[in-house]
Amino acid sequence: MLLIKNIGILMTPVGKSALCGKAQAKNLKLHNAAVAICDGKIAAVYKDGELPIIAASDTVIDAQGNLVTPGLVDCHTHLVFGGWRNHEIPLKLKGASYLDILKAGGGILDTVKNTRLMREEELFLKSESFIREMLANGVTTVESKSGYGLDYDNELKQLRVNKRLNEETPMDVVSTFLGAHAIPPEYTGKPDEYIDYLSERVLPEVARLKLAEFCDVFCEDSVFDAAQSRKLLLRAQKYGLKSKIHADEIEAIGGATLAGEIGAVSAEHLIATDEKGMESMAKGGVIAALLPATSFYLGKNYAPARAMIERGIPVAIASDFNPGSCPSLNLQFAINLGYIAYRMFPEEILTAVTLNAACAIGRGETVGSIEEGKQADLVIWDAPDLEMVCYRFGTNQVKTVIKKGEIIE
Amino acid sequence: MLLIKNIGILMTPVGKSALCGKAQAKNLKLHNAAVAICDGKIAAVYKDGELPIIAASDTVIDAQGNLVTPGLVDCHTHLVFGGWRNHEIPLKLKGASYLDILKAGGGILDTVKNTRLMREEELFLKSESFIREMLANGVTTVESKSGYGLDYDNELKQLRVNKRLNEETPMDVVSTFLGAHAIPPEYTGKPDEYIDYLSERVLPEVARLKLAEFCDVFCEDSVFDAAQSRKLLLRAQKYGLKSKIHADEIEAIGGATLAGEIGAVSAEHLIATDEKGMESMAKGGVIAALLPATSFYLGKNYAPARAMIERGIPVAIASDFNPGSCPSLNLQFAINLGYIAYRMFPEEILTAVTLNAACAIGRGETVGSIEEGKQADLVIWDAPDLEMVCYRFGTNQVKTVIKKGEIIE
Repeated sequence: MLLIKNIGILMTPVGKSALCGKAQAKNLKLHNAAVAICDGKIAAVYKDGELPIIAASDTVIDAQGNLVTPGLVDCHTHLVFGGWRNHEIPLKLKGASYLDILKAGGGILDTVKNTRLMREEELFLKSESFIREMLANGVTTVESKSGYGLDYDNELKQLRVNKRLNEETPMDVVSTFLGAHAIPPEYTGKPDEYIDYLSERVLPEVARLKLAEFCDVFCEDSVFDAAQSRKLLLRAQKYGLKSKIHADEIEAIGGATLAGEIGAVSAEHLIATDEKGMESMAKGGVIAALLPATSFYLGKNYAPARAMIERGIPVAIASDFNPGSCPSLNLQFAINLGYIAYRMFPEEILTAVTLNAACAIGRGETVGSIEEGKQADLVIWDAPDLEMVCYRFGTNQVKTVIKKGEIIE
Repeated sequence: MLLIKNIGILMTPVGKSALCGKAQAKNLKLHNAAVAICDGKIAAVYKDGELPIIAASDTVIDAQGNLVTPGLVDCHTHLVFGGWRNHEIPLKLKGASYLDILKAGGGILDTVKNTRLMREEELFLKSESFIREMLANGVTTVESKSGYGLDYDNELKQLRVNKRLNEETPMDVVSTFLGAHAIPPEYTGKPDEYIDYLSERVLPEVARLKLAEFCDVFCEDSVFDAAQSRKLLLRAQKYGLKSKIHADEIEAIGGATLAGEIGAVSAEHLIATDEKGMESMAKGGVIAALLPATSFYLGKNYAPARAMIERGIPVAIASDFNPGSCPSLNLQFAINLGYIAYRMFPEEILTAVTLNAACAIGRGETVGSIEEGKQADLVIWDAPDLEMVCYRFGTNQVKTVIKKGEIIE
């Protein structure tokens, strides 16, 4: 048995399905708590100084009166990519628009080019270093999307890296097929043909090889419209891939509405979502995966998190780590923005980066809360309470990470 | 000799006095460089693969093709304080204003209460942990202000902690007396009397004991007006303390103008500075110490950095680390904001956190650039160029810190 004792405050959402912010009462707050772990799972949770009988062979960790929460879940990342885009900074400062840069072969096409050029082993090693840093920052489960290959060979290459990351690192990595992330150079001006190519050539192989659990699509003006998105996602559902949608990041062209209609597990970004989209999401039980660090980095508006919570939509918060619009894998900073920019309460934010995020990637049954029977993924913080985690920024406040009952060194 | 070899790019401003952003040509960029260090000082700088003759007794560090810059200088912090203010988050989210919180004994008065309660040794240990974290993040020289004691005993207590930090850690700590940070409870409604108390009772002792090099004042509506600020700062100048001013953070009530008139070394914050203030600063050679992370955390406007640069005012960027308006000691995040929010070029930002910051705290002669004879304070980055340092955020991109020729472990 592994025992974590002397937990000043244990905070966790409760359950296996996503919670709306109104349901704060479902958050459990225990004082002077302890957690017993056996075989990588949570065996028991104690409060008010209660402790089990400890055997000589047990390992005991003293949390020293600090806060303990579930391990964090980052439910939206693009962590497998070649290159970076640091060289675009001077261009941007001189006034080049996103379109100017894209026309010069920059932006996402630059990342596609570099990802295609990179050997699978190099891609794995680069991604693995991100996974290690995420773990050190308290993230124990992460979603990873493809979408910088944009052809058969390179989409599958990215997805195989996801598989290896899941198998060869302590992190649980949930794989999402995002072939429809952009229109590749080979299909410029032909989005319908590209959707057909993905549906007929790539998707069947992704499904056959079990390389992804989700299919995602970038539903946005000048990328894929709602009809194209619907077509691909329904096709993917037939192959057993659940749906996610990059929706309403710039304009509300029907992505959030579509998410509710086709039973998508989550819709993501949602900066420009309108009343109709929120209604559809609420009705369809869609989780809103919000990405505040991207709004921050691009100087954009922030998604209307409070409006969503008021309408009964469960909110998750993720990093959106990617080399273009958000070169940060720091989910703690997204937590800070949950407070600063979304004006969410600490309990709502915790739910957003644990249970709701887990549910957004189909892991609500096994992770996202500290409850008997769930996987023993926990964070011991160098902070006395959840308010401190939201309030201090620019510092890694994680003290110890426990993944499947093992201490991550 | 300590030799740093295989430096992909060495970037540094040049000189001993502050540079305006227009003077980017004064930045030196060397490729395939090396730096030789003797007796804690920079002995020679090499470029294009040149190297000195290496003896068996020399220590050689391989920078592995990465970027090397001067050690960072954080020229505005309030790092010696008791308590935190995490508990104010729920109040703020429920709509309490800063004044509501202050009236309930919160805000800065809460920090004053906790700082007064804390024993000197405890204060030292808490501050020392911040100093260690700053060093790990690439900061090798820091300014530290008093201003949470607000009486004779407690201001001197804070300043003695500054002195110990300077003597007992590898960090160079420059001490600033900020007794006029707020009006203490004992002087509510009596700012003039408090200024007299500081001038007659506290300042002479600070000077006699050599506990500070600078005197600073919070010149702001409802705190100290320009006449009170002038009185205290001129008095301090007679005692040999150079002037700094917290100016125009909320309203332009004459702080920046005063800074130019009395020959202040720096004016700080400057969010609301008007044309008249900038003219006075340019004329008086005042350095603008800008604090973008505070604007970020409070959701305020950002200081007009580009307008200042256009007017020939040298710009420095600092963290403003404090427990209220900016609970972040992360100067790398302020660097990111220099790009994202101020739209400064990477070379301007580097100057702002090295040479200009050094000059803002009277250290331009000894640190802030990589030049023969200067103190050997350097950062080896886990990044190939300066653009990468500005572009990625949420990650500590520092690989190795060298302080006075010693590797900080």
